[in-house]
Amino acid sequence: MLIVTNPVNIRYFAGVELEAYERFAALIICGAKRAFVVPKLDEGRVPGPVFAYSDGEDPADALRRAAEVCDDREVEVDGSTTLRAWEVIKRALGITAYRIADERINDLRAVKRPEEVERITRAAEIIKKVIAEVYAELSPGVAEREAAASIYLNLIEEGLRPGPILVQFGENTALPHQGPTGRRLREGDVVIIDVTAAYDGYYADITRTFAFRGEPARFREIYEAVSEAQTAAVAAARPGASAGEVDEAARSALRRRGLDRYFVHRTGHGLGLEFHEAPNIAPGESYKLRAGNVFTIEPGVYLQGHFGVRIEDDVVVEGEGARVL
Amino acid sequence: MLIVTNPVNIRYFAGVELEAYERFAALIICGAKRAFVVPKLDEGRVPGPVFAYSDGEDPADALRRAAEVCDDREVEVDGSTTLRAWEVIKRALGITAYRIADERINDLRAVKRPEEVERITRAAEIIKKVIAEVYAELSPGVAEREAAASIYLNLIEEGLRPGPILVQFGENTALPHQGPTGRRLREGDVVIIDVTAAYDGYYADITRTFAFRGEPARFREIYEAVSEAQTAAVAAARPGASAGEVDEAARSALRRRGLDRYFVHRTGHGLGLEFHEAPNIAPGESYKLRAGNVFTIEPGVYLQGHFGVRIEDDVVVEGEGARVL
Repeated sequence: MLIVTNPVNIRYFAGVELEAYERFAALIICGAKRAFVVPKLDEGRVPGPVFAYSDGEDPADALRRAAEVCDDREVEVDGSTTLRAWEVIKRALGITAYRIADERINDLRAVKRPEEVERITRAAEIIKKVIAEVYAELSPGVAEREAAASIYLNLIEEGLRPGPILVQFGENTALPHQGPTGRRLREGDVVIIDVTAAYDGYYADITRTFAFRGEPARFREIYEAVSEAQTAAVAAARPGASAGEVDEAARSALRRRGLDRYFVHRTGHGLGLEFHEAPNIAPGESYKLRAGNVFTIEPGVYLQGHFGVRIEDDVVVEGEGARVL
Repeated sequence: MLIVTNPVNIRYFAGVELEAYERFAALIICGAKRAFVVPKLDEGRVPGPVFAYSDGEDPADALRRAAEVCDDREVEVDGSTTLRAWEVIKRALGITAYRIADERINDLRAVKRPEEVERITRAAEIIKKVIAEVYAELSPGVAEREAAASIYLNLIEEGLRPGPILVQFGENTALPHQGPTGRRLREGDVVIIDVTAAYDGYYADITRTFAFRGEPARFREIYEAVSEAQTAAVAAARPGASAGEVDEAARSALRRRGLDRYFVHRTGHGLGLEFHEAPNIAPGESYKLRAGNVFTIEPGVYLQGHFGVRIEDDVVVEGEGARVL
């Protein structure tokens, strides 16, 4: 039997979002049979069969009854199951061994159904619109933090759930992971806007780089190199190619221009109910792409003390290649 | 030896915030001796001794070397340690048993040092200012979601890290956990604004209830009852009192007015590096309050279909009683 405790995996398998993250909750799966164990508070949110427990009751008792839907006692769990939850499982079933099912679950989740691709597409469209609108309203003197907050506001108004938002001006664009600061916009700054947000639970992740009313030396050259690397990686993404080959396509395009040593992160990551999931588009990754994989392609070049450029789009692998969402 | 893997507990014991949450990271503590195991990416963020591992290396090897700072092999862990992390610990130390140290860690964390109280106080002050400012600008037709986004914006601009933000209008105020919707403000609506946000990692949590240009029947009566219950609970909070007694002080004040059955949640929860931590201010809780405990006191009365009232402040237990932050 598979015992799923990770709330994101529960949402994946059963389509429900539980509230009571602090309390024990699990979905038991054996073939087509399922059963939920949840605190009373969440009883109405899940489809049956459901075994609810009140505060003061031992969730292990509910789990023991729920597990009767399964014939076996070989327990598979997600690796993100906490020891606290594992104690409940041990107590309920009298077992001491588990197998971690992450690989199998992540493989399933990495291949999106059409309705999942639709949601990510919708998120990507709205994010692009919001980035364009907020960029168009930037004026000298605005702080990175203020621009980030206004993106947040727009995402909420559009019905998206915001994830990490990066807004970087000038020399800060050379620091690929730095969050919004009080740095104020000046003419001639490079601007990077990187927005992650979910529509109906599914995340898209888009980055755009601009030069604000003037550009520093080498900006055009670097921008074109990154854009070329991105195009090369999109072209390399197709069923049967490895994730490492897609990474290498971006990396070798930059290598031809002598810029690969400034590309200091992976080329991309999967998107779905989480904003970082399988597949991992990184050097040497052997994962073979399949139709339905959705991931970012986001090469970047970072010249410390000067500026950085990153261009990020989301693609879905289809029939013969990959389509930008 | 205590092996801490929960990032919040690592921050508590060592004052550092790690980035690489997806990868294995741990802080080993034996008495005054400490050692970190982190991915290379985080090596520069932690004080020594640090045992870093690269992608492709087994973190268990680094952990095995790090554990040599300790003489014993009796392992205590946090209950939020994942099975994936536990596999690393097992492999590193060749052990199969652990003891969960949550109670001890939570007891430590529940008693705040003066510099922790200062941060929560600062967060509380800013939140109160932001609530007052945003409420003053509300006009008929604004949606709950828009008001929530504008609170978020203000918190960011003030340098706080926003946690959950509730804005509720009219009949929605009777649903204590419901997030912001598209419901638009009308004259005569009750308005609840509930804001959680952190200053330098430490959360405060404040709720205010208003009547917007007119008030429904019974509003004044209910507001006064909740205010009285809150005052009674603050008066009951002092070193040596139990958390349950504080809850009962609020509950019995409402009982005298026949309103206790509309008070459907606990009286409060601890505040610190997390916005829900020990102590739990709920019926029957035997935890004895100590100087340095910081928690919310937030009684509420909810008349389904009509309106709700909740008043929430944060207190620190001191010498003879409790002080509102």
